[in-house]
Formats: sequence, C-alpha cells, structure tokens
Amino acid sequence: MTEAVKPDVLGGFRDALPSDMIVQQDVISRIRKVYESFGFFPLDTPCMERWDVLTGGSKDFNKSIFVAKIATGKEDRGTAQDWEENYALRFDLTVSLARVIAAYPDLPKPFKRYQIGKVWRGEKPQKGRFREFVQFDFDIIGSRSILADTEVVQIMYEVMRELGIQNFLIRFNTRKILNGLAELAGAKERANDVFRVLDKLDKIGIDGVVGELQRQPENQYDDSALALPPESTEKVVNFLNISDDDPSALLSKLQSFFGSASATGIEGVEELRQMVKNLTALNISQKNWKVDLSVARGLDYYTGPVFETMLTDAPELGSVLSGGRFDGLTNRFVPNSNIPGVGASVGVDRLIVGMQDLGLLSQKPSLTQALVTVFSPELEAQSLAFAQELRRAGVRAEVYLGGDSSLRAQLTYAAKLGIPAVIIMGPDEAARGVVQYKDMTNRKQTVLTKTECLASLKRVFP
Amino acid sequence: MTEAVKPDVLGGFRDALPSDMIVQQDVISRIRKVYESFGFFPLDTPCMERWDVLTGGSKDFNKSIFVAKIATGKEDRGTAQDWEENYALRFDLTVSLARVIAAYPDLPKPFKRYQIGKVWRGEKPQKGRFREFVQFDFDIIGSRSILADTEVVQIMYEVMRELGIQNFLIRFNTRKILNGLAELAGAKERANDVFRVLDKLDKIGIDGVVGELQRQPENQYDDSALALPPESTEKVVNFLNISDDDPSALLSKLQSFFGSASATGIEGVEELRQMVKNLTALNISQKNWKVDLSVARGLDYYTGPVFETMLTDAPELGSVLSGGRFDGLTNRFVPNSNIPGVGASVGVDRLIVGMQDLGLLSQKPSLTQALVTVFSPELEAQSLAFAQELRRAGVRAEVYLGGDSSLRAQLTYAAKLGIPAVIIMGPDEAARGVVQYKDMTNRKQTVLTKTECLASLKRVFP
Repeated sequence: MTEAVKPDVLGGFRDALPSDMIVQQDVISRIRKVYESFGFFPLDTPCMERWDVLTGGSKDFNKSIFVAKIATGKEDRGTAQDWEENYALRFDLTVSLARVIAAYPDLPKPFKRYQIGKVWRGEKPQKGRFREFVQFDFDIIGSRSILADTEVVQIMYEVMRELGIQNFLIRFNTRKILNGLAELAGAKERANDVFRVLDKLDKIGIDGVVGELQRQPENQYDDSALALPPESTEKVVNFLNISDDDPSALLSKLQSFFGSASATGIEGVEELRQMVKNLTALNISQKNWKVDLSVARGLDYYTGPVFETMLTDAPELGSVLSGGRFDGLTNRFVPNSNIPGVGASVGVDRLIVGMQDLGLLSQKPSLTQALVTVFSPELEAQSLAFAQELRRAGVRAEVYLGGDSSLRAQLTYAAKLGIPAVIIMGPDEAARGVVQYKDMTNRKQTVLTKTECLASLKRVFP
Repeated sequence: MTEAVKPDVLGGFRDALPSDMIVQQDVISRIRKVYESFGFFPLDTPCMERWDVLTGGSKDFNKSIFVAKIATGKEDRGTAQDWEENYALRFDLTVSLARVIAAYPDLPKPFKRYQIGKVWRGEKPQKGRFREFVQFDFDIIGSRSILADTEVVQIMYEVMRELGIQNFLIRFNTRKILNGLAELAGAKERANDVFRVLDKLDKIGIDGVVGELQRQPENQYDDSALALPPESTEKVVNFLNISDDDPSALLSKLQSFFGSASATGIEGVEELRQMVKNLTALNISQKNWKVDLSVARGLDYYTGPVFETMLTDAPELGSVLSGGRFDGLTNRFVPNSNIPGVGASVGVDRLIVGMQDLGLLSQKPSLTQALVTVFSPELEAQSLAFAQELRRAGVRAEVYLGGDSSLRAQLTYAAKLGIPAVIIMGPDEAARGVVQYKDMTNRKQTVLTKTECLASLKRVFP
C-alpha cells in the first residue's frame, strides 16, 4: 500500500473551482464576442516553445521562465543532464504570435488575431501574483495605419461596455512624444530609462520623478542613475505640467512645446490628433478616454501609441487592459522585416477581481436551471424523459443522481448549487399525472401539468 | 546583432491557425452547450502538478511525462540539479479532478464537472499523435446510481447529434461482465491482461485472441504470457459468440451464460439491463447504441460500465468519445475513500479530423461578415462610424486597415479571408449619400442608402 499523497497544488498555482470558472468563462466569452465583432479570429500556439524562440537566442535573457524535459521515472527526473530538447514554457503570447507571422509568410495581412491562453513565469509568488495565469490578447499585424491604433482604443471601450463597466478610463499617449521629450532633455540614448521613471509618476509624484531623473550614480558600478542636469529635468517638468481637459487644446499646447525642436515629438502629436478625431467621430464618450502624457508603459518594444485602462472605482488595481504599437515584431526571426503590429492584452484575473470588488459579477455555483427529482427506480424513466424534454426546449435541466433520494436531500442539493427551480415528480404526482414546480427563490410550490410546467420554465429561462 | 532564430515549433507540437481554431472553437462550444444542458459546470486546474500528485508517489510509474523547473539563463538551464520543486505537466485531466475532490471535501456531491484543457505526453511523435493535445472531459463524481452511467451514454448521444453527426455508434459494456468472464476462465487475478487481449478483437479476430490467451511464456522472464488452458479459452470463445441484435435478448443469453457461476457477471447483466431500459425510455435510437461485449477499454481503473463511440463512416479513427465508471478515484489521496465516478472524454483533435474527412465541417479563414472599405483620410470617420453601426446591429464588421487602399487590394483582402460582403464607401458614394453593397458570393454590386444596407446585412446575417 503506497502512502497517501497530499492533494496540494504547487506554490504560485491555483484551482479555478466551478463558481470561479463560470464567471471566468462568462467574462471571456463576452470579450471574445467584442473581438470577433471587429473581425478578429482565434489563433492557438503550443504552450511550449523552443528556448531560442522564447529568448531570441539572447545571452543576457534574464526572465525567470519554466524549462521542461521528458522524464519517465523519478530517478531520471533527478539526474538526467540532457537538455538538448530545448523545451520552455511561454511567458506571454506575443513571442508565439511573432513566430507564427514569421513561419507562415502567406497569412493575409492585416492579420487580426486574438489568443487566449495560460502563460507561466518563474517569479516569486506573492499575493495576487501567480506563476500561471491567463492572458487574452488581440493584435493587428501588418497595418501601419493610425486607424488600427484607433481601433484598439475603440475595442478597449467596447469590451468595458460589454462587461457592464460604466466607470473606466482609457488613457493613451504615444512613444513618439516621449521619445521627443527624451530628445529635448538630451537623454535620447537612455529614453527607456526615462520612461521607466515617468511610469512611476502616479506613485512618487513630480518631485519624486525629478529627484530620480537627477540622481547621481552612487558608485562606479551604478548604471541605473540618469544624472540629468536641472535644465533637462526642467523640460520634463514643463512637459508634465502640460494639461487641458480638451484633448485638441492639449495637443496644441504640446505642438508649441515641441515647436521645431523635435520632429519625432511633432509626429507623435499628429498621431494623437488623428486618434482624437476618429474617437470623436465615433461618439465615444470623452468621460471614458483621455490623452495622458504620463502613460509610458514599461516595455521596451513599444514604438508608437500606448494604451491603458483603469477601473475608476478601483484605481489601486492598475491597468486591466493595456497595450501599444510595436514595430519590428518578427525581427528576431527575419532581420529587418519591420512588420508593424498594434494590440492589447486583458489581464483576465485582475479584471475579474476588480469586477467582483465592484459588485459587477455574481457568483453562481452551477448553471443548472431546473433539477428534476427522482424517488424510486419505477419513476426513473419518466424523470429522465421529462428532463430531456426540458433540454430540448432550451432549459438546462439535470436529473438528481445522488444516493439519498429523500425530498429533503434533493432540495438541499438544489439549494447548495443555487438551482432556481425544482420539478418534483414523486409517486403522488405520477398517479395524478402532474408535477410540482418548486420555485427555490421564494419556496413557492405549484401543481402543474407537464405541459404547463414546460411552458412556465421556458418563460422563466428563455 | 543577434543571429536570426528559426521560427520552428518543437517536434510533436503544432500551431492551430485561425481556420483550424475557428472550427475547434465551434466544435468545443457545441459540446460545452450539451454538457451544460445536463447540469455540468466548468472546472479548471493548473497545467502543472506536483510530481507525487501525478504519479501517486508510485515508484514504478512509467509514463513519459514532462517535468519542469525554473531557469533564468541558458547555463542555469543546462546544469542545475535542483529538482526539489517537483513540477510536472499533467498528462490527463483525471488526476487533477481527483486532487480537487480530495482537497475540497465540502464540494456538493454529485459533482458534475467538465474540463477542457491541454495535456502533455512525452511519447515519440507520430503521424496524428502529438506531445500536446486537447482533452474535453465530463465526469459525475459521487454517484453510484446507474442513472449516472445512463446519463453518460445519453450525453455522448446528444454530443454527436449537436455536432450534426448522424452515423455513429455508442458501444458499451461493463467491467463486471468482463470480470465475471475472467472468473469463469480461471484468470481472475490477471483480469486486466485478459481485457487488454480482448480489446484487440477488432484487429486480430477471435483466433488471434485465443492464440494470445493461450500463449506460453517464451522464457522465464516473459510474464506477459497468460498461458490459459483450452477449457478457459473455450469459455472466452463462447462468450464472444454471444450475440443478438435485440439488447434484451442478448442480456438473457448472457444471464444464462453466467448462471450461478459468477455473481459479478450477473451484477453486470443487471447494470446493463437498467441502462437498456432507460435508454429505451428516452427513445434514443437503437441505430446509435449497442451493448457490445467486446468493449473492454484498456485502462486499469475502470470498475463498471465502459463506453466508446465510433463514427460509423470512419471506423479507422477508433473511438472519438470514450469513458467509463471508476470507483476509488481519490484513494491515492484519501485511502479507502472509494468515491465513485463515471464520465467520458472527447478526443477533440481526432473528432475534428473525422468530421472534416466526412465533410461535416467547413473551413472558414475569418468570422467577419462585412468589410467596410476606406479610401482616404477624409472618408475614414464615416467608414468607422458605419462599421460601428453594423456591429451594434449584431453584424461582425471590420474596417479595412491595409496600406494599399485601392479598391482592388481591398476586394482581394476580402476574397482571401472569405468575407461575404464588402461595403464600398468611396468619394462618389459619399457625395451621393449612398454605399455600394458588394455580395462576394456572386460578385453582384448594389447601390443602397446606409439604412437600406444595414437592413440588408441584418437580414443576411441575423
């Protein structure tokens, strides 16, 4: 007899029990509906990729990722040295998208795909941070048009609306403006470091940003310090002080700020102007979007507009739906191919946490609409047949399969699972050719013919 | 400049391009609809489990599975010996289900869950056999009632119907009958080996089965040989010759075969009798199901009824939807808990291959119903707005985002993606306040007002 095994999950991993999964599936299917309404189609890729594909063959790849190998026994698992097989678990969905675009050059472009899938990261598990989580991306590959960027914002807006979220804010900016600023501040070569500091504005305030930008190296090995001179940080402060509730007025101020000093900055202003024009033409409420010059998005690979979405009633969650434009997606596979892309990703887990906190999602332990009772072997056949009739009429119906066939046990089962209707078909009812419809929401019981009962259920669960 | 990386997938892995994924999603959502109509709810579990959970702590575990660990760099990946972390990728969904049942004893029972997910096996890749594939299971945990077994067959039937498959055959049997046979044949202790031989009946015929059962060990180490005496194999032959198109008549013959010689066999006959009674009461066409005494299902853990489903027009595919009853699912975690379970699993990939071969699935490269053209920046806003109007009316509509805005390029894009309708909104149309509706299926072009066009599209894509 082998010893009992503990039924534990690995640290940083978790189960999604039915009540969680019902919510997750519902959220996902509503988001998918929006993506599809804009002409996106699904793609799926393996959860494991070659090490070189994931890391770009880069020697200084420094993400903690899961690598895998095949083992047949515990000993094999512990000692085998053979890593030739090169298996690594994906840490996002973007690298695999890039691989697909490079591997199948004949795919029609623009290529508008969505993908939902789990990704794995070897980071230290913390509250709300897991080693396995779900991403739900959509991307438009092969379009340089600013219409594509506008569409991403539009989709973010429609996703929020479809989920019944009223209070949200999509903030966007473009890397070109930030690049223009870095140019003006004399820090063009270290633009990404500047952006990482700007990204902290919400947390550390303007003074914190200035301090961080001016910080001198602590010793000769400290290469994180930017050490910008005051005349540079003054430009940054001027930039961060540009504001106007009216997006067109904001863009005019920005135009003056750059003047003829940065062609890149002016290009960025023009990008945003077109996006603002189109969003206005689409009548997308200005309550829900904003040009926000402090949005930078940490990732190095963004090259144009960047977007993020906050739940205004739960700002502490950070962005639940973010993305941007990245040109050069497939360069790892086809040098200088410079295929453009723009898209965004829903942080499904975080979004659900936010919606639950805001009371926008109700937990349901089951999807069943009607439980049909069974009391004795002779009555089984009629219960089975009636449940099947309900299903044919579009009602999700289950026959009670438990061992204790007392009415009490059957009602307890329905109550535990939140099943709203119980159809009682006992010997008395069978003798009288009727059923009893028990409405579990108000505990009322009604005697009906099967036909009446079916009609009633169809009305309640159309 | 790093060297270009080859955009290859790992051996035994594959991409599901959009046209494949559209089909897969459609098939999955139809199957899910059936599962849910019977009161099943979704569950999700991590793709990685603890080594001990997957193997049951067994020393002679001999499946080839993927194990994983966290690595930050290529060197780390190649040399680290630390396997303490115990990560292993699941090879099916059943072990995780068992863990969940053991870990959350308060889950209401019967627990009717479905789960869809990828699983990984380290076997040698072959044609049609992959290292990563999708399983779609449904199981009823905590019910000993034969109604649950009947329901599994009923669901298998409904799944096939929902998928538009007419010609299929669900064959079922029960392990109790096979155990009774092994008892009669004096091979009770080696019942599983006998079943494995019976499972080959379709391939090797009755004579092959007899030969295999009688085979003597080739040497002292050959413990696969059963070496049954002729009087035993005669019983097996008699058993395999029991047949009758009428299931009740078949069961009577079986009853006589066992007589008073095997209580287990008689129990099995009684189980099948109840299932036959219920399936008949449900009016499930006898064309689609059959008690088949040769069905054994290889897996050791089945203890009661076993089921499989063939596409009668593609028998070479084997079973596409199979399962059985297994009592003792959680014993690995809670010794002697003996929690009963019964369920089945769809081999999604195999099922889709079969449906495609039979012409039951059509490939679509896109889900878009209408492409709205864009010719110049001044006309963007109206195209965006009209596409949005279409979406609000429930039409999946996309605005053309490509770089080449000639009509020819836009029509080519629509044709490549199989988009059935193109709405042309050029400068001429704008000046006249109309649009042109091009039906791509017959290339006819009609001038319409926007209102007429919207009404038309709603009619075509309700």
